[in-house]
Amino acid sequence: MSRLIKELAKLPGIGPKTAQRLAFHLLELPRDEVAQLATAIVEAKDALKFCAVCGHLTEESPCQVCQDTTRDHRLLCVVEEPKDVIALEKTREFKGIYHVLHGALSPLEGIGPEELNIKQLLNRLQTAEIDEVILACDPDLEGEATALYLAKIIKPLQIKVTRLARGLPVGGDLEYIDEVTLGKAIEGRQEL
Amino acid sequence: MSRLIKELAKLPGIGPKTAQRLAFHLLELPRDEVAQLATAIVEAKDALKFCAVCGHLTEESPCQVCQDTTRDHRLLCVVEEPKDVIALEKTREFKGIYHVLHGALSPLEGIGPEELNIKQLLNRLQTAEIDEVILACDPDLEGEATALYLAKIIKPLQIKVTRLARGLPVGGDLEYIDEVTLGKAIEGRQEL
Repeated sequence: MSRLIKELAKLPGIGPKTAQRLAFHLLELPRDEVAQLATAIVEAKDALKFCAVCGHLTEESPCQVCQDTTRDHRLLCVVEEPKDVIALEKTREFKGIYHVLHGALSPLEGIGPEELNIKQLLNRLQTAEIDEVILACDPDLEGEATALYLAKIIKPLQIKVTRLARGLPVGGDLEYIDEVTLGKAIEGRQEL
Repeated sequence: MSRLIKELAKLPGIGPKTAQRLAFHLLELPRDEVAQLATAIVEAKDALKFCAVCGHLTEESPCQVCQDTTRDHRLLCVVEEPKDVIALEKTREFKGIYHVLHGALSPLEGIGPEELNIKQLLNRLQTAEIDEVILACDPDLEGEATALYLAKIIKPLQIKVTRLARGLPVGGDLEYIDEVTLGKAIEGRQEL
């Protein structure tokens, strides 16, 4: 029992109390339901791998996005993590393809360009015909640094480099938006 | 006592319980401190009025922003409320002048163009020399409707009309941003 609690408590957002509650709940379930959960965890881990082309999580490599010929393969969106691909897919706005870096530059944590999926990105840009690279890194310090670094090494390849707009979140209230974002929204104002 | 509690409970965000706690706290204070608070409330109410030019809250009319000759009087930012002026001033990004509408169009609540400070806005645009109007309405339904309405009536005056950028809040995390905002951020992406 204490081993189960310890394993559960390793999950993100689950502390010792929640782990204990989960463990007791699992013990009360019928055996086959518990076995189903255990199998699902191991199967997912075994079946999912990273796409050899873009680095996204997938069961088959290349992934479905990379294989989809109806998408615009000349428009490449660079993101930090597979979950960012999922967030962008939900918008239904983006019809291009992706490249997942698996992290952001962070000298403090010892993450340099070598630790990220950047070499593969440059290979793709040199071999495939790509018109525009959208840098969709997180709008935080590490993400900004990563975007600037990538822009510097991609520009010599004569490829257009853009990044996601900074500004007001839709549905918000002007007075509750932080000053830096509001400043960026003024700076990036667009003609109506 | 119950009258005091009732008056306090009318304030926004203050329910009957909090009103009671505030009332008891006020009763425990020395008499001169209570009198100071009461005077401050009435004096603020008496001293503050709306600027005759822009509609912002001010002690003197025209307000300090309207009087400031170091600001760019050819760049006019339209906002819904005086508190939006304060939010924009905090960014230190904006060096133009303001116009406060005192609300947004809302047919459901019976707020049409006549109820807002729009006639005065048109007067200003026709008499003063203004190069650009930034519509800084809230990024919600009413705000969008107000901005579109204003854009329609300002454009014939041959004045450039812009609005604040929609996009990622600075310091955020891509995966936690709502789909609509993320979609706008892709749409409004900017060249690096």
